Amino acid sequence: MSGIKVGVLGSQGKVGQAIVAAVENADDLTYTVGVDKGDSLEFFTDTETQVVVDFTHPDVVMDNLKFLIANGIHAVVGTTGFTEERLDIVRGWLSENPGVGVLIAPNFAIGAVLSMRFAAQAAKYYESVEVIELHHPHKADAPSGTAYRTAELIGRARAEAGVGRSPDATTEELDGARGAVVDDVRVHSVRLAGLVAHQEVLLGTAGETLTIRHDSLDRASFAPGVLLGVRSMAGRPGLTIGLEELMDL
Amino acid sequence: MSGIKVGVLGSQGKVGQAIVAAVENADDLTYTVGVDKGDSLEFFTDTETQVVVDFTHPDVVMDNLKFLIANGIHAVVGTTGFTEERLDIVRGWLSENPGVGVLIAPNFAIGAVLSMRFAAQAAKYYESVEVIELHHPHKADAPSGTAYRTAELIGRARAEAGVGRSPDATTEELDGARGAVVDDVRVHSVRLAGLVAHQEVLLGTAGETLTIRHDSLDRASFAPGVLLGVRSMAGRPGLTIGLEELMDL
Amino acid sequence: MSGIKVGVLGSQGKVGQAIVAAVENADDLTYTVGVDKGDSLEFFTDTETQVVVDFTHPDVVMDNLKFLIANGIHAVVGTTGFTEERLDIVRGWLSENPGVGVLIAPNFAIGAVLSMRFAAQAAKYYESVEVIELHHPHKADAPSGTAYRTAELIGRARAEAGVGRSPDATTEELDGARGAVVDDVRVHSVRLAGLVAHQEVLLGTAGETLTIRHDSLDRASFAPGVLLGVRSMAGRPGLTIGLEELMDL
Amino acid sequence: MSGIKVGVLGSQGKVGQAIVAAVENADDLTYTVGVDKGDSLEFFTDTETQVVVDFTHPDVVMDNLKFLIANGIHAVVGTTGFTEERLDIVRGWLSENPGVGVLIAPNFAIGAVLSMRFAAQAAKYYESVEVIELHHPHKADAPSGTAYRTAELIGRARAEAGVGRSPDATTEELDGARGAVVDDVRVHSVRLAGLVAHQEVLLGTAGETLTIRHDSLDRASFAPGVLLGVRSMAGRPGLTIGLEELMDL
Repeated sequence: MSGIKVGVLGSQGKVGQAIVAAVENADDLTYTVGVDKGDSLEFFTDTETQVVVDFTHPDVVMDNLKFLIANGIHAVVGTTGFTEERLDIVRGWLSENPGVGVLIAPNFAIGAVLSMRFAAQAAKYYESVEVIELHHPHKADAPSGTAYRTAELIGRARAEAGVGRSPDATTEELDGARGAVVDDVRVHSVRLAGLVAHQEVLLGTAGETLTIRHDSLDRASFAPGVLLGVRSMAGRPGLTIGLEELMDL
Repeated sequence: MSGIKVGVLGSQGKVGQAIVAAVENADDLTYTVGVDKGDSLEFFTDTETQVVVDFTHPDVVMDNLKFLIANGIHAVVGTTGFTEERLDIVRGWLSENPGVGVLIAPNFAIGAVLSMRFAAQAAKYYESVEVIELHHPHKADAPSGTAYRTAELIGRARAEAGVGRSPDATTEELDGARGAVVDDVRVHSVRLAGLVAHQEVLLGTAGETLTIRHDSLDRASFAPGVLLGVRSMAGRPGLTIGLEELMDL
Repeated sequence: MSGIKVGVLGSQGKVGQAIVAAVENADDLTYTVGVDKGDSLEFFTDTETQVVVDFTHPDVVMDNLKFLIANGIHAVVGTTGFTEERLDIVRGWLSENPGVGVLIAPNFAIGAVLSMRFAAQAAKYYESVEVIELHHPHKADAPSGTAYRTAELIGRARAEAGVGRSPDATTEELDGARGAVVDDVRVHSVRLAGLVAHQEVLLGTAGETLTIRHDSLDRASFAPGVLLGVRSMAGRPGLTIGLEELMDL
Repeated sequence: MSGIKVGVLGSQGKVGQAIVAAVENADDLTYTVGVDKGDSLEFFTDTETQVVVDFTHPDVVMDNLKFLIANGIHAVVGTTGFTEERLDIVRGWLSENPGVGVLIAPNFAIGAVLSMRFAAQAAKYYESVEVIELHHPHKADAPSGTAYRTAELIGRARAEAGVGRSPDATTEELDGARGAVVDDVRVHSVRLAGLVAHQEVLLGTAGETLTIRHDSLDRASFAPGVLLGVRSMAGRPGLTIGLEELMDL
């Protein structure tokens, strides 16, 4: 048994189970213990756990973090619900325990993070940009949160660079054909049986196009991002927000 | 010099020039003469032309056809504006000259014809189907005529087979995100600098998807369809409507 | 309880379980019983099963079919290993029980069947055709059996139509760059973590391309094809080979 | 008339004509004069040209640069054949004229430059990576120079990060199916009528894939990159190698 000692909060949920499996499969990591509803957080101190992954619930995540930081345990957090107020509280705890690193990220799929970054970087070099997101037909919202966020990042990059709106000579449109508009970027949502979660950013200028496509085929797709967080936190004290901060881009 | 003798009406237009070039490049065809505004149709009889390609104008195409049919010359017609009334007139002329073959087709791009056919055939075997068409940003209408027609063919095939609407759990939609609706089929229109004319039909059911994509990169894409018409007409007397009738599908 | 009564041979295997679930989810079908190693085939006659699905093993499938046909039960068979000799034996049994229908098919993924059919139909209308198949990196053979079969069908269609080899001016090739050759068709095999089973047939001629892509994202993708077989067999006595025979193409 | 004054060397060639047109279409640039074989380079000084674009020939490019640098004119160079020795000579001239900026780039298609950069950045976060390049069938070399270069950049990024070879369980391969190998990266070359110049980098890890695709549909695709160079050189004295240096990546 060697390597970084990793524990998991919410280890019996779907996501938690996948993380436990990923940790157990990694040669440089050792799984210590899972803590679920009703279990004591002291399981982590008892097992000398160094990093804890938290995919739990907004109701309990703050108590979890308070305990972990106070005990010198690094944290990788995928739980949602972090307002600026909450982040400030976490920063306060960390200032009292300056050796501890905490990563809070809304999206652990490396491909989604890379897609957004690349799209934003490329956006100002192209006349036109549109986003197509494609999901299974059980999804309630259109466009997806990731597509919405991607369009915002593209829109902001173009506004900062002073690039105008994508050209569009449409004068006769059947209602909805040209998609939704987010920050001057057209976004199209496809819902199709057999799909999982997919997104394409299309960029075009005279004579050429660039397409950045991300396909997420199963839930395991967040695991590599979580492991990147686990491996990085010991060497990165303080609060880190967003997986992209750990990537060399 | 050998092979089928082919003449071209409107030989100096963009499309006409491309057809002349395609005929000249084909080993089994011989280009005889082009007839443009102001030229006499008798150039075709003088040169013993066997098949004439007509990409002209609704105002003159009927006079052209009357002459060609009366003189025993087959015709391949891409000119638009054929109402049922006009088609009946052509049928009348053909009944008096039963050896002559005339092809009238709205679309000579083989890939567009195949895409529509395949999409319609596959449509009833899938739970879901959507259409994405992608064009240059100078296009005035959205969706494209081809996408509209494709959706109609898909919708009709599904209705005939008693297949229901594609499943869709969307409850929160940013206006336009889910595209336009044509015969219960969602159609999305992308307009992007650098593109020409492209279309994807996406079909999906449990665990699998089928995508039929057609990319038309330049105007030459109608040439193979025109040549297929030219080669077929001598052996196909009477009126043929639509390139698909000549294809072995 | 109503609808066609369906039993499953090999009901506890991975594929069998998926078929049982698909039958149970279909309104017009009723699941009767599963028969696994050690169980009696008479479970099917006891439960008045009308159609049995067999995804078992070449060693036992002939005994299964003999029993089913003798008892007037239709069969849908995905088990492999059917030589011409074996097919003749099945035909013999069926001639003695002329009301029984048996479907034997190597591939039940509707999308794979459609892809092959469409590729073969389109092949003669295009100058060029190539196949790219993309699979998970645990696959032992390259190209996949489906890609090999697809290339054979394309090659045969082109040979019958007298279409020559796809043009290729390559004079300097890094070994392997241009892929494998199956019946004059280039086939490329991609192996990538994160993929499942995918195939693209690319067809091209002057100014346009047609792409037929099939994505199979999970094992459930054979279920719709099996159900199509189950629903068709009562009305289709005798031996049917290949799912495409049941499809209206 | 206002804006940066731009001249073109080789203004009557295919590429030169496209550059002249692009300059004339840009509001912030003014086209001064073209210099072709037999013309005097003094046309540029006579017209107070500020930046000259050179897409000529290795035989004449050094004389062109010597003149331009000596006369305080910035240069954007797409001509090939720059060895380290030649670059050193250019650096020498520039050290004597420290206000002058020269850009020498092997590839002015922004999408190609971005594709390579993004592929190299993403390469170390994925278990697997392969490259597919697709071109018209008149191309002599396979893989393309861009695909070869892309694979090298990916291979180098993975080697530096200590990422191992992409997993591959292939044990039975039809010769060539798995493509060519460049720096441990598989590269596949498709040649298809109807295509122009296209490239896909596929990256995959557990449950997800990222695809970066570049489509170059006509020769105009280098124009935006050339204009980016023209606009940047006045503010960037000295030698710049590669368009990516001007991009904010």
